[in-house]
Parts: sequence; C-alpha cells; structure tokens
Amino acid sequence: MNTATAGRPSGRSAVAVPQLIEQARAGSPRAIARLITLVEEASPLLREVMAALAPHTGHARIVGLTGSPGVGKSTSTSALVTELRKQGQRVAVLAVDPSSPFSGGALLGDRVRMSEHATDPDVYIRSMASRGHLGGLSWATPQALRVLDAAGFDTILVETVGVGQSEVEVAGLADTTLVLLAPGMGDGIQAAKAGILEIGDIYVVNKADRDGAAQVSRDLRGMLNLSAAIAGPPGTVWKRPILKTVAQQGTGVAEVVEAIAEHRAFLVSTGELARRRVRRARVEVEEIALGELRRRWGAVSGSAELDVLAARVATGELDPYTAADELLA
Amino acid sequence: MNTATAGRPSGRSAVAVPQLIEQARAGSPRAIARLITLVEEASPLLREVMAALAPHTGHARIVGLTGSPGVGKSTSTSALVTELRKQGQRVAVLAVDPSSPFSGGALLGDRVRMSEHATDPDVYIRSMASRGHLGGLSWATPQALRVLDAAGFDTILVETVGVGQSEVEVAGLADTTLVLLAPGMGDGIQAAKAGILEIGDIYVVNKADRDGAAQVSRDLRGMLNLSAAIAGPPGTVWKRPILKTVAQQGTGVAEVVEAIAEHRAFLVSTGELARRRVRRARVEVEEIALGELRRRWGAVSGSAELDVLAARVATGELDPYTAADELLA
Repeated sequence: MNTATAGRPSGRSAVAVPQLIEQARAGSPRAIARLITLVEEASPLLREVMAALAPHTGHARIVGLTGSPGVGKSTSTSALVTELRKQGQRVAVLAVDPSSPFSGGALLGDRVRMSEHATDPDVYIRSMASRGHLGGLSWATPQALRVLDAAGFDTILVETVGVGQSEVEVAGLADTTLVLLAPGMGDGIQAAKAGILEIGDIYVVNKADRDGAAQVSRDLRGMLNLSAAIAGPPGTVWKRPILKTVAQQGTGVAEVVEAIAEHRAFLVSTGELARRRVRRARVEVEEIALGELRRRWGAVSGSAELDVLAARVATGELDPYTAADELLA
Repeated sequence: MNTATAGRPSGRSAVAVPQLIEQARAGSPRAIARLITLVEEASPLLREVMAALAPHTGHARIVGLTGSPGVGKSTSTSALVTELRKQGQRVAVLAVDPSSPFSGGALLGDRVRMSEHATDPDVYIRSMASRGHLGGLSWATPQALRVLDAAGFDTILVETVGVGQSEVEVAGLADTTLVLLAPGMGDGIQAAKAGILEIGDIYVVNKADRDGAAQVSRDLRGMLNLSAAIAGPPGTVWKRPILKTVAQQGTGVAEVVEAIAEHRAFLVSTGELARRRVRRARVEVEEIALGELRRRWGAVSGSAELDVLAARVATGELDPYTAADELLA
C-alpha cells in the first residue's frame, strides 16, 4: 500500500464526489450504483455526498411495497414499473432485504423477474442488504432514497422482503405504502399478526384470479373497518382502498397506479405529505446522530471489559443493569 | 394524586419486588406475568428485579422457533409443549411479535391454538409485543427470558412471527434455533431470501403429509450443503438435521425434541453453550447501556431543535449529517 491509497478500502480507486454526483444527476446508472454502494458501506464520504445531494431532493414520490413472501411482490413491482413507464415517469426500484447479508445473491430472483426492464434507461433497479447496519432499514434506506431522489427519478418503489419490523419501517419512509396480500397465504388472524393493518395506505389483493381472493378482500375490509383509521390531519379521512390485481397479467395495475396518485393528491391537499417528510427527516437525523454516538462509544463496547462483564452476567454473578452501569462508568 | 402514589403509573398499586420474585419462583403465573409486564413497560423497577433474579438464572434451555407465517409455528409450539410435558419438563412459551403494538390481541390466534395447555400449571404461555422498544427484540426479550428462567422453567420456547430481522435476533438469543418450513410457501429462492440458512440449528419441514414436502426438504438440504456450516468450535461440526413433522397430529415431534436434546449435548460438550450465553449477555448489557445513553440523549432528541432541523432537512435546505452534527453540538 502506498501513501496515496492509505486509509481507503483496498481495491477501490479514489472517488471524486462532485463528479460522481454530476454523473448520477445526468442519469448514469454506474454513478448511481456507486453512490448507493457508498451508503451500504457507510463510507466516510457520505457526509460530502449527502451535503451535495440535499438541494436536489424532495421531488420523487416514494412508494413502499410490502407483504409476506409469496404474495407476488416482485411481479407486482415489475407490473407497476411498466404502468408508470406508460405515463412517461422515470422509475427506480429499491429492493431492501433486511434479513440477508447478501447484497446481490439473495435478491437474484427479483432481478430475474425484473429483467423485462433491464434495457430501459429510465428504469433503475437496485437491491440492498441492510442487515449489517445497526438500526436496520432506518439507517441506510433513507440515504439510498436521497441518492435516487437527487438522481431525478419521478417514482421510487421501495420493496421490502418479509413480514415484521421492516414493514413498519418502510411505512415510515414512504409517502404511500402498498400492502400486498394473496389468497392461500394464511387466515385472517395471520394477516392481523403481521401488523399490516396499521401501515397500509392502499391494500392490494394479488393473484385475484385464484380461489379465496374475494374472501381475503372481505376479511381485510372487515379488519380495516375495525382498526383505527390512518392518522390524518383532523377532519380528513383517507378511506384505504382494497384493490385486486393479477400482476402476472398486468390486470388491475392501472387502478393501483391511479390509487397511488389519489393518495398523493390527498397527502398534498391536507399538508400530510410535508408532515410525513419531516417525520422521515426526523428519523434520519436521529439515526445519524445515534450512529455517531454509537461510534464514539464503540471503543467502549469493543473493549475487553464488556467481555468480562458479559461472562459474569452469563453465570448469574452479575445482573445486566449493574454490568451496563459498570460499562458506562 | 396523593404523595403515596406520586411518581407511579396511575391505576397500578405499589409493587413489592422481593415478594413478587418469591411468588414467581414459587410458580405463580400472576407474579410471572406481572414481572414480564414490568419488562414490557420498561419499568424503573427492572434494575431491582434483574438484580434479584440474576443468581437464579442459567438453568433453562432456550429454544427459538421461527418461520414464515403459515408454516404452522403455533401448532408446532403446542405439539412441542405436549412432548416436553411428557418428559416432565416445566415449559414456558414466549411468543414475540415484533411487528405489532398489541400485546394481547394480535396473538389471540396463538392463544386459541394453545388452549389445550391452558389448564396445565406447569405450562406458562405469554405473548409479548416488542415493537415499542427501541432495538426491537434485543432489548425486551432477553429480560423476559430472565424472568422465565429464574421462575424455574426447564425449557423456554421463544416463538417469533414473521421473516426478517426478528429471526436473526431470536437466533442470537436461543441456545438452539428451530427453523420451520412448509410446502407451498414459495420456492427455494424465497427460502434463501429469508436469511434462514445462517440461523437454524435444526430445520423442520412441517405439514409433511402435503404435496411438495419432499421437495422442500431436498431443496433445503442442497442449500444447507452449499452454505457455510454453523460456526462451532474448531474441529467440531454440527450437521444440521432436517426433520419432518405433521404438528397437527403430533407426528415427528418426538424426533424434534430428541434433536433439541442432541444439539444441547453438542453445545455442552464443545463449550459452545457457554460461548452462546456469554454472547447473549454481551448483547443484553450493550443494549441496556445503549438504552441508558439513549435516555440521556432523549432530552436532546425530544427537543424542538430536532423538529426545526428535520423540517430544514425535509426541504433540502440542510443535509442530514450537518443536522445531526448541529443536534449533537
């Protein structure tokens, strides 16, 4: 290693941030990919990147897509991209897999299914692993969204895998959250379990040509009616629609895109869009600040002292609170 | 409010910790429930509780159970309880739902399905919502496990809902992690997506009487062979078994219990059990210490300053790093 490359990850050439940003804003997929990789790597360059991107953000519509494995998320995403492209929109897809350490391999299936858009220069598709990041989605995803927003995409679809915390988080990041369901994925109680009732702005029953789709739709309507309405500004109510699609054939997808536009209009007219974006920024700033606190305290937590304390806690000699006190002292 | 109740949550009578612990250790479900509620509420009494419990911990075998919705987790848990009871073990079930803000309602389905054990005094079943806690499972679950451990249960089954971060976390908490699958829940790529290949000690293909069970088993074996072996001490290998069950009928469940015992023997003989428990204690101490740091910084993060900064970030006037710096300054 010579002095010129000291302190940089090996195998990477120096990055000129202003140039990279200029290229990303001109639509270079390579530059966009590079910037998102900086986010994934929690690069020290991110400060400079985010400062340069900030003035160019706030344009994109951020649409979250979530649902259990097997409901057809990837197919639905692909169909939505097709529909949005018909309207002339530039579209980015960010597939976030909070459970996998793999950035590429784990989402290979999605990529295969999305291949029909592979040659379209106005579609950008990226999978991102967030497992390595403390705080999961909350840390890395908003910054990847900043990159795509500044790169001028009209709509960014954020697709998350799985059911659980990630859903709740994606709902916090998106302007509009779509929750996908499908017949045959478990009963109503399962749906309630997944905590999906609190997070969706639009519900989509995919595979609507299969047995049981009408039942899923009815059960869901019943549960949505019982659950509290999505908190909107006083006096306004967004009646969460339940739509049916057969994403594989594109059936019903135009209606979903229409519902997204209607929800957008609702968000804008009520001032809720601005509130959601401030809330998102709040989380983002907090996470970065907490990350910085964690970094400062990393020296402590990586210490041999913690190992000794943990061993004493494991044997029951010490309780974890006393150990934490000793660690912080 | 009179002075006697000042500073306590309204509607709650004073708690005498030593008495509560004595009752819990004598097997009172009411006292155990009360202690776990203190965990859920992040009560200031927890310090005292955990200090008193510490000497009584380390006995219970902690078995994690995870898998996508619909694979039959609740039914499998119930069948495992039945089998463990045949061996005379006292068994606790902790059902953790990281996606739901509900402590009770969301897991109603589980409770219904577990009702066959409702009258057995040596079985304790509790659902717990962890969504409200910063850090998800990592904060509250280990402390609830401490309560159950100190209460003298021989085996604690920790069941998590969903696929995602929660799985990875439950694997970190358990001595032995069972990953459940079932035919018809999606293809092999879906399984890989869920990140389950890295976390299971024992794999169970439930609903093995259905079409496709053999295929799930074969696909899984192929993937397990390709993936890195679970890190054990040098020179030791735990060959992760793939078992088949029809939990509804209890078929194959005895073999699962046997595999859990074999894995336990492996953990003990290799010293891996102690290592896993130190690792768990390490996470626990770290989370508590971080919680304390968060509390200290809560005054900052709850401040009007953060709101102002977030609003400036939302409009693109400020980037989130600069905002975080200003917040920390």
